[in-house]
Amino acid sequence: MLFSKVAILGGGLLGGSLALAVQERKVAGSVAVWARRAETVAEMESRQMAELVTTDLARAVEEAEMVVLCTPIGAMAGVVERALPYLSPFAVVTDVGSVKTPVVRDVIAVLGGKNEFVGSHPMAGGENAGVAHAKADLFEGAVCILTPVGETAPAALEQVRKFWIALGMVLRELSPGEHDAVVARVSHLPHLLASALVNFATSPDATSLAFCGNGFRDSTRVAAGHSGLWGEILMTNRDEVLQALKGLQGELSRVGQLLENGDTPALLSFLARAARARQTLSPRSKTEE
Amino acid sequence: MLFSKVAILGGGLLGGSLALAVQERKVAGSVAVWARRAETVAEMESRQMAELVTTDLARAVEEAEMVVLCTPIGAMAGVVERALPYLSPFAVVTDVGSVKTPVVRDVIAVLGGKNEFVGSHPMAGGENAGVAHAKADLFEGAVCILTPVGETAPAALEQVRKFWIALGMVLRELSPGEHDAVVARVSHLPHLLASALVNFATSPDATSLAFCGNGFRDSTRVAAGHSGLWGEILMTNRDEVLQALKGLQGELSRVGQLLENGDTPALLSFLARAARARQTLSPRSKTEE
Repeated sequence: MLFSKVAILGGGLLGGSLALAVQERKVAGSVAVWARRAETVAEMESRQMAELVTTDLARAVEEAEMVVLCTPIGAMAGVVERALPYLSPFAVVTDVGSVKTPVVRDVIAVLGGKNEFVGSHPMAGGENAGVAHAKADLFEGAVCILTPVGETAPAALEQVRKFWIALGMVLRELSPGEHDAVVARVSHLPHLLASALVNFATSPDATSLAFCGNGFRDSTRVAAGHSGLWGEILMTNRDEVLQALKGLQGELSRVGQLLENGDTPALLSFLARAARARQTLSPRSKTEE
Repeated sequence: MLFSKVAILGGGLLGGSLALAVQERKVAGSVAVWARRAETVAEMESRQMAELVTTDLARAVEEAEMVVLCTPIGAMAGVVERALPYLSPFAVVTDVGSVKTPVVRDVIAVLGGKNEFVGSHPMAGGENAGVAHAKADLFEGAVCILTPVGETAPAALEQVRKFWIALGMVLRELSPGEHDAVVARVSHLPHLLASALVNFATSPDATSLAFCGNGFRDSTRVAAGHSGLWGEILMTNRDEVLQALKGLQGELSRVGQLLENGDTPALLSFLARAARARQTLSPRSKTEE
């Protein structure tokens, strides 16, 4: 048992899965979940997803040693502001947001030194949002990127590290800025591309979808994700996403030129380079993301 | 038992899987496979993948009622030319190629009316090429696009239909030209995109891959495919692929402009349109493609 109490603020796919995982792996003596909507509270209670599920933020965070922000990223600083008076002085705060620079900056500012915050980005999720799709093994074997900053207390960083390791995650560390640049390339850009591919393939109508194989299904899986959450992520990280998009557009122009020129050797080397790099990737982790 | 003998010309992933599937589903009394390389023959014989595995084209095709071309597309017409003297007058020829216009034109020309040819494109495969990865259930539940032309004899088309249905495939029909245009959008373009995404994410070096989740894995899975086979497919269908690429580049420029302008409502509607369309797709069929 690493913690006597963990508080999870936000009852979506990630918050719900986290509650299940903390229970199943006995990471904490008790788990409290704060959710904004009464229906979420009812659903989580009926599935016994935590010892306490409540719309009362004060009760959720009181005496928790680890507080995990699982709301949409734009709501995180506001939730921390409201929870602040009730946080134990020993509570370490972390989050699950997909963009780190503004979250880390704003949450640290709101905490005002009263509590430590360490940004986290568990690279787990799924195209099916909402607590109904929560599962205890969502985090197993997936990468979690921690984004400590200069003023982060080493003891707080260590607590957060232990938390995610106990959930079976593979840890990495980057500065918030590095995180946002890398994740723009390997997550946000692929999402934008998948959405563009679906929109292109279904214009002017969706008849092409009758001719799809698993290649198209896999290439576009993430496009089925929650458009509200993804719109917020892409807009929040838009400078990095735009830069990544420009880089990819350059790749596409170059390969288009190879095709135009009928330059088979160069096309083969383009494809072979991608195949070799892709083959070095470890297999997908157990659960959907 | 639909056929007394089926001949499979080419012993790669598709030819090997087809041999296994025809046996397992008892679609033919006997299966003969022609392979170019002696090592492939030895491997298929040791796995008992067909009644006859041989480098002798004449023996493979003699008395077969169904002949399936499973070589790379550029080799198909040449193989048919060599097999022609040994084909039974009742043999119907089909194929598994991913581009149809040139294959249908060239194979029909080589056959010169002696035998019927019906183009087929089973949308099944996998990023692991070669007979070593063959599996009997590769075709189950996947789409197979048939591309008859004006002069195709209805009886031959019916034979080919029955063959793929017996293997558990879901049939569609398009003209060769329609096929090449649709498949450029839902298969060839996604392959090019996945390769471009991998190449971009691993430039100048591959450190970004340490931060990948399952989203990136799925979006880029097809890029691990055999670069030689895919180079041939893309070059053979390059007019359609280039047109699809231009269409996608237009989508990307438009969504880039939305990000640039900070136009959240338009971005959300772009993402929501893609999410809705992607959610209408049936789940992936059982096996890899």
